[in-house]
Amino acid sequence: MVAEKHRNVVLASGAFDLLHYGHVHYLRNAKEAGGENAKLIVIVARDKTVEKLKGAKPVFPEEQRRALVESLKIVDEAVLGYEDLDMLRVIERVKPDVIALGYDEEKVEKELRKLIDDKNLDVRVVRVARFGEKDLISSSKIKKKIIEKYKRENS
Amino acid sequence: MVAEKHRNVVLASGAFDLLHYGHVHYLRNAKEAGGENAKLIVIVARDKTVEKLKGAKPVFPEEQRRALVESLKIVDEAVLGYEDLDMLRVIERVKPDVIALGYDEEKVEKELRKLIDDKNLDVRVVRVARFGEKDLISSSKIKKKIIEKYKRENS
Repeated sequence: MVAEKHRNVVLASGAFDLLHYGHVHYLRNAKEAGGENAKLIVIVARDKTVEKLKGAKPVFPEEQRRALVESLKIVDEAVLGYEDLDMLRVIERVKPDVIALGYDEEKVEKELRKLIDDKNLDVRVVRVARFGEKDLISSSKIKKKIIEKYKRENS
Repeated sequence: MVAEKHRNVVLASGAFDLLHYGHVHYLRNAKEAGGENAKLIVIVARDKTVEKLKGAKPVFPEEQRRALVESLKIVDEAVLGYEDLDMLRVIERVKPDVIALGYDEEKVEKELRKLIDDKNLDVRVVRVARFGEKDLISSSKIKKKIIEKYKRENS
């Protein structure tokens, strides 16, 4: 009989509004942080959370964003977050061994480390390097590029 | 000894510039048209082809678009197309049993059926139903939505 090996659970998160290859890069690095045979669970931000954080509604509704993320080979499960952005509630639900943050989530990292310390949780936090310096790496930049092109063509 | 079953090869194609759930829907239906255990090969249009067909460069470069499509669970292989849009060359390379076209590819369907007839090819052509009536279903519509929002906010 072969004992079942422990699979580290890795938690990643984001809005994933305009999906691009940088997202896959982030998710791949996130999963790798969990070691061999890790399980990757992705929290996809609710529409209201995106609006609150980024000041604008996402282009795609939350259920479509969630379903698209779960369509990726690298993702084992994608679930919608809580509207109130409650990190402790997410941790209690997903029970991650590792939480993988994006390269630009300094502020979240600070808050998260404080929470883990305060509650004495057994969770490792990692930050994932960004995908190429010159590449499009965020939905905001994609929107900007589209708008700039529009302005050029209509000036 | 179990004889290896024939796996139907399904060929799907597109620009896949701003990936959305409608694309996954199209690809899933495409694969289903190949029956059990079908293999889905996706031709991703070259930057130059996109520019020629749609009058505008894609937001993402071809290799990123290809890699993102290949990151989808439903896709077995994603390859870049030929710049000259040569359907016969693609068919000879991929050797598909089924070619799955999008709901809006009436013109391509006509040309393709003529080619298959002329060359006496053993390929079935199917058109895949569109994803929801009210949903965002094309990169052009996504761009339009982003631009309209920008105009509202800056008028």
